[in-house]
Amino acid sequence: MTALPILRLQAGRDRRIGSGHPWAYSNEVVMDAAAKALPPGSLVRVDAAEGGALGLATFNPHTLIAARLLTRDLGATIDEAFLAGKFKAALALRDALYDAPYYRLVHAEADGLPGLIVDRYGDILTVQMNTAGMNRLREPLIAALTSVLNPRSIVLRNDTPARGIEGLDEETDVLGDAIDGPVELIENGVKFAADLVGGQKTGWFYDQRDNRAAAARFAKGGKVLDAFCYAGGFGLTAAVAGAASVEFIDRSKPALDRVLDGAARNGVDGKVRTIAGDAVHVMERKAQDGEKFDVVIADPPAYVKSRKDLGAGLKAYRKMARVAASLVRPGGYLLVASCSHNVEPEAFASEVRAGLARAQRNGRILRSAGAAADHPVHPFLPESAYLKAQLLQLD
Amino acid sequence: MTALPILRLQAGRDRRIGSGHPWAYSNEVVMDAAAKALPPGSLVRVDAAEGGALGLATFNPHTLIAARLLTRDLGATIDEAFLAGKFKAALALRDALYDAPYYRLVHAEADGLPGLIVDRYGDILTVQMNTAGMNRLREPLIAALTSVLNPRSIVLRNDTPARGIEGLDEETDVLGDAIDGPVELIENGVKFAADLVGGQKTGWFYDQRDNRAAAARFAKGGKVLDAFCYAGGFGLTAAVAGAASVEFIDRSKPALDRVLDGAARNGVDGKVRTIAGDAVHVMERKAQDGEKFDVVIADPPAYVKSRKDLGAGLKAYRKMARVAASLVRPGGYLLVASCSHNVEPEAFASEVRAGLARAQRNGRILRSAGAAADHPVHPFLPESAYLKAQLLQLD
Repeated sequence: MTALPILRLQAGRDRRIGSGHPWAYSNEVVMDAAAKALPPGSLVRVDAAEGGALGLATFNPHTLIAARLLTRDLGATIDEAFLAGKFKAALALRDALYDAPYYRLVHAEADGLPGLIVDRYGDILTVQMNTAGMNRLREPLIAALTSVLNPRSIVLRNDTPARGIEGLDEETDVLGDAIDGPVELIENGVKFAADLVGGQKTGWFYDQRDNRAAAARFAKGGKVLDAFCYAGGFGLTAAVAGAASVEFIDRSKPALDRVLDGAARNGVDGKVRTIAGDAVHVMERKAQDGEKFDVVIADPPAYVKSRKDLGAGLKAYRKMARVAASLVRPGGYLLVASCSHNVEPEAFASEVRAGLARAQRNGRILRSAGAAADHPVHPFLPESAYLKAQLLQLD
Repeated sequence: MTALPILRLQAGRDRRIGSGHPWAYSNEVVMDAAAKALPPGSLVRVDAAEGGALGLATFNPHTLIAARLLTRDLGATIDEAFLAGKFKAALALRDALYDAPYYRLVHAEADGLPGLIVDRYGDILTVQMNTAGMNRLREPLIAALTSVLNPRSIVLRNDTPARGIEGLDEETDVLGDAIDGPVELIENGVKFAADLVGGQKTGWFYDQRDNRAAAARFAKGGKVLDAFCYAGGFGLTAAVAGAASVEFIDRSKPALDRVLDGAARNGVDGKVRTIAGDAVHVMERKAQDGEKFDVVIADPPAYVKSRKDLGAGLKAYRKMARVAASLVRPGGYLLVASCSHNVEPEAFASEVRAGLARAQRNGRILRSAGAAADHPVHPFLPESAYLKAQLLQLD
């Protein structure tokens, strides 16, 4: 038995954790002087009010989510070997899923490591430690990742807003070999150039892998528009699948450079055109000009970053869907997506529907999907399924 | 202009149809003597209360869903050529989706033909005319199907409960060549034997195509259990993907014969075992015996056939999930599904979660999906997305 401090739940508050949920909220624990004095991120044993031990967790006395369970095995020791076991299990799953070593390796709670994100780009890893608990485990985490995967470099992308909530600084660091320039990754057989150090989040969005493949099925011989393209995930997949031409819109010049880099890596430079600007504005202008595309993709950054943005964000999704739909030729295809945690799938579907109505378009939904399987969802945290994508054919 | 009877909507009731919804309910139309006198299934022009024409529809004065829109093109004539146009569009979409001619060709409203189902098995079609409107169009529908697809046989599977609601008789018929014995179909590269005349629904459930492929990814070298297997869709896909052994449970002896037939067609007879019985009972017995499988599939017939069954049905899904989960080895995989229209996705997910809790199992959801893309969803009928499947890895 480890000699961990004991965090006691309030009476009657053990049921949810007992059934499989991985969290205790701050108003569910006995927040006495001893608990308050624990450094954020401390390992604790979580006990029911009546005394039965429920599991081992990380604890932050200052956050709404107070305790995050690491294991229900009371005899476990949370050390490098424990963490290596989690990484091996996560790796075995991805090995079963994918042929090539490019994927999200650890997706936080769903992979048994609350607050930790690890993306793999061959022998380079990007890591986010989004909780005080994971941050405190930094040394054994890095050691375990090194022992299991022997990476050439580990990019610490600890520059997430989530860390602020946990009382942590934002920082970026590269362990191991320096990273000079874009890193190549392969997804659906297509090569991409990702900026792991300066790009968004961990440098790439593997979550759209299956949705990119699904949209590309309809690209052959067609004219494709990839709005909010970032480094070109959807559009380059379409180009390699045989699109006649692909236009990419993003307001980030560096992102568009990654698109061109990726296009060259796949030998599809000839069919690629980039447009720097606000994607909705550019699409509106194209619509006014009467332009039509065979496939339009609109996958914007989160419009709803917090609940207070919900009203405005939903309107923005509606507008985006309307404008994007107006660019689809009759019989063509539209992929729209939202990565806003705070937008429920039904709410997103409702805004897409309203956008279609405004554009006086109709059709059929061929696919409603979330993130790919390397972004699994904890069964007891269904609300963590943030990604919503709809692929439609429009009449 | 066609000289169709005019069905007038009540004041203020044109907005939903105007925005893209394909139905008018009986309490939204002016149900005067003329409307009541129209034979069920009549073609009508639907007009707003103020007089603007909205589209052409089939009408049944005796059903809750009174009018089902066929087109918003007021100049259209609903004849063989019109229907052939719909079939050609549906075919073009499936041609883009699939390499082989085995799929749902027409999925009712979502393919612009309310109430009509057409499944394709190479040069044999099975057809369900589930509304009085489609039933009345039988002759031009058959003629249009024949002109577009030149089928060897058309199996009319008009033996659906939905027809009773529409005041139609249940009937089964085979047009063209007689069907003697099971018909072969190919899905995900796997051969199956389907009973198109006597089997469930249209003989096969193409809707699970992608979910079968997803589950089979984890079957290699493993011990697989396919509960409620019907003709073996999940289990034979797993067997061909390299499962070491597959056990199939179904209470229907003819269904199990189809499994053995399909196994022989793929040369995997050696690894297949069938068990006739109630799937939940058989699974419970196996659980008592301590049996474990690498992959367990539980895809039962609808537990909730009408709203009054909801409470009991949800409990049955919970029990099914509990028992099936208890048979999964640690690290193994579970696919559970519900095809009950009356069970919302969140309700199903909640019962699966509760079943896991009862079985004291946890893990990660790798996939939450509905039907394959040949079963599209009308954007304005999101409630028609009946299929819910979850693929989980369990710890």
